[in-house]
Amino acid sequence: MDKLPRPLLLTMGDACGVGPEIIVRAFQRGAAEGCVVVGDLGVMRRAMALAADPWPLALLDSPADATACPPRCLPLWQPGGMPAALDQLPWGRPDRRAGAAAAACIEAAVRSVQRGEASGLVTAPLHKAALAAAGVPYPGHTEMLQALAAAPGATPPPVRMMLANDELCVVLVTIHLALRAAIDAVTFDAVRDTLRIAHRDALRRGQPNARIAVAGLNPHAGEDGLFGDEERRIIAPAIAAAAAEGIDARGPFAPDTVFMRARRGEFDVVVAMTHDHGLIPVKYLGVEHGVNVTLGLPFVRTSPDHGTAFDIAGRGIADSSSMEAAIRWARRSALAGAGVSGE
Amino acid sequence: MDKLPRPLLLTMGDACGVGPEIIVRAFQRGAAEGCVVVGDLGVMRRAMALAADPWPLALLDSPADATACPPRCLPLWQPGGMPAALDQLPWGRPDRRAGAAAAACIEAAVRSVQRGEASGLVTAPLHKAALAAAGVPYPGHTEMLQALAAAPGATPPPVRMMLANDELCVVLVTIHLALRAAIDAVTFDAVRDTLRIAHRDALRRGQPNARIAVAGLNPHAGEDGLFGDEERRIIAPAIAAAAAEGIDARGPFAPDTVFMRARRGEFDVVVAMTHDHGLIPVKYLGVEHGVNVTLGLPFVRTSPDHGTAFDIAGRGIADSSSMEAAIRWARRSALAGAGVSGE
Repeated sequence: MDKLPRPLLLTMGDACGVGPEIIVRAFQRGAAEGCVVVGDLGVMRRAMALAADPWPLALLDSPADATACPPRCLPLWQPGGMPAALDQLPWGRPDRRAGAAAAACIEAAVRSVQRGEASGLVTAPLHKAALAAAGVPYPGHTEMLQALAAAPGATPPPVRMMLANDELCVVLVTIHLALRAAIDAVTFDAVRDTLRIAHRDALRRGQPNARIAVAGLNPHAGEDGLFGDEERRIIAPAIAAAAAEGIDARGPFAPDTVFMRARRGEFDVVVAMTHDHGLIPVKYLGVEHGVNVTLGLPFVRTSPDHGTAFDIAGRGIADSSSMEAAIRWARRSALAGAGVSGE
Repeated sequence: MDKLPRPLLLTMGDACGVGPEIIVRAFQRGAAEGCVVVGDLGVMRRAMALAADPWPLALLDSPADATACPPRCLPLWQPGGMPAALDQLPWGRPDRRAGAAAAACIEAAVRSVQRGEASGLVTAPLHKAALAAAGVPYPGHTEMLQALAAAPGATPPPVRMMLANDELCVVLVTIHLALRAAIDAVTFDAVRDTLRIAHRDALRRGQPNARIAVAGLNPHAGEDGLFGDEERRIIAPAIAAAAAEGIDARGPFAPDTVFMRARRGEFDVVVAMTHDHGLIPVKYLGVEHGVNVTLGLPFVRTSPDHGTAFDIAGRGIADSSSMEAAIRWARRSALAGAGVSGE
């Protein structure tokens, strides 16, 4: 495995969910070499205690000290200002302190990347209700990272969520909005920006002519205007504008068959208008190998494509496959960004 | 194979699509025993001419004469009032005459079932734009069958579209509506009626305690009200009402994972609020074995779960697997309704 020039940061996510334990498992399975955990010491100790063969934790002063961590140790950087006694919170319940700690870890990790100490982020799942209870003004990772990535006073960069597994790569125009609000957010600019971002990401991943299919919003992509006009008014013109810029954007296609067509190899990427149009097919075959990637940020950011799994948190049975896939994807992207061709 | 007491009627669908040729293929593959085609003679002759080994057509005076049809003949009943020269229409283009003919076949078939001449319907795909061009006031089969099933002057019975394959059984609360209008159509009554209809159908198919999962409308099923309130206001109360009637209705669950959970065996049926939430997962693994079933009608009705496939119509290459699965499903249901236990 090529060595990362700078560490990847793994944020611990919600302290009451499976995040801490899947991070521990990824390390113990040898899948997190060159990574540093950004989290709370007590929380990570509690997660380590679930392991059959617990490792010691190496508390670092800065992510830049990662190389000083001996083998079979979990390298941990604890940002300042963690709420006290997080390791006393019950597993599997949303708590505002866990939400506040998760948000603090994400912010500290972004600042560390911005200081040049790390090459990117892999974020363990957080719980949106805990985040909201903590007064964090973002519904999820993507929106929060977008705001943190912007220079003070500057407009945040447009970002998009991509979900990818071995069969399908989906980029979403809208994400964490009520479906009614999501429809309002499907604008010409939003669709065209999504196509630009998806195209640029594929280019960076070494795919200069990615075939990007656009799923419509309405049943049968509106069936020639019979079931809604967003395809004619908004989506088709945005596809035409992207195509005029040299992007291989096609559609809009009927949402119910375009993912199946992509799975069969007809397209490289599918752009979906809503969270669930895009995520239902990505998750249908199982979430074990899915990766969530934020496109449009000035740094690499991936995460597993599952949530906090409160129902099994703290039992030491959570599967780390998606976390490991997220680390692999971030490694590849960080190496590509550093001019190293592969793993 | 148990003999059907009365024939199943196969409506030819849009004359310019793959419907006629997949019907021919189903017969020639031995998958349509006991069925009668309701269609236009010229159209079905044109479809038969695509076969490697064409069969003669046996023109029946009534579906009740099906038993008079010799083997290796295609039994055809042509309703009155077919537009002239339908077999001159170009393949693969929507035409109002094809739309009018498709609608006439469906209406004639329903009337025949209502006269007791046949046990149910398997409908080949129609083209919604051709139907609309013909002035037919229904967007698709389901709505048309619902209207035809009602006694004159009576309120049509509530019906629902079910899509089923070997892995997943999905019943839809809304179907052919713009997504905005579909959200408005997600009412307490619509959800509760869907649960009742799905439960009753499972009961008829010999599954008295079907576990019915309800997918939410919004991302993460509203995430405790953060992304939309339809789950709290409408869907959860409708589930509770159905449960109070003894229906094993559960949820609402996050749309992006509930189908995966059903595929793994956690639920028998999933109720989805919108066309594409439900059909994306059913179609994701391929449409070859999917069946579309209309629930709530006083007779059996199934169809393949693909469309007219105008891009390949008339080339003799269309796959009849979904049509054959639809015939099998209708046979089983008709036999169950007639008190015959299986095939």
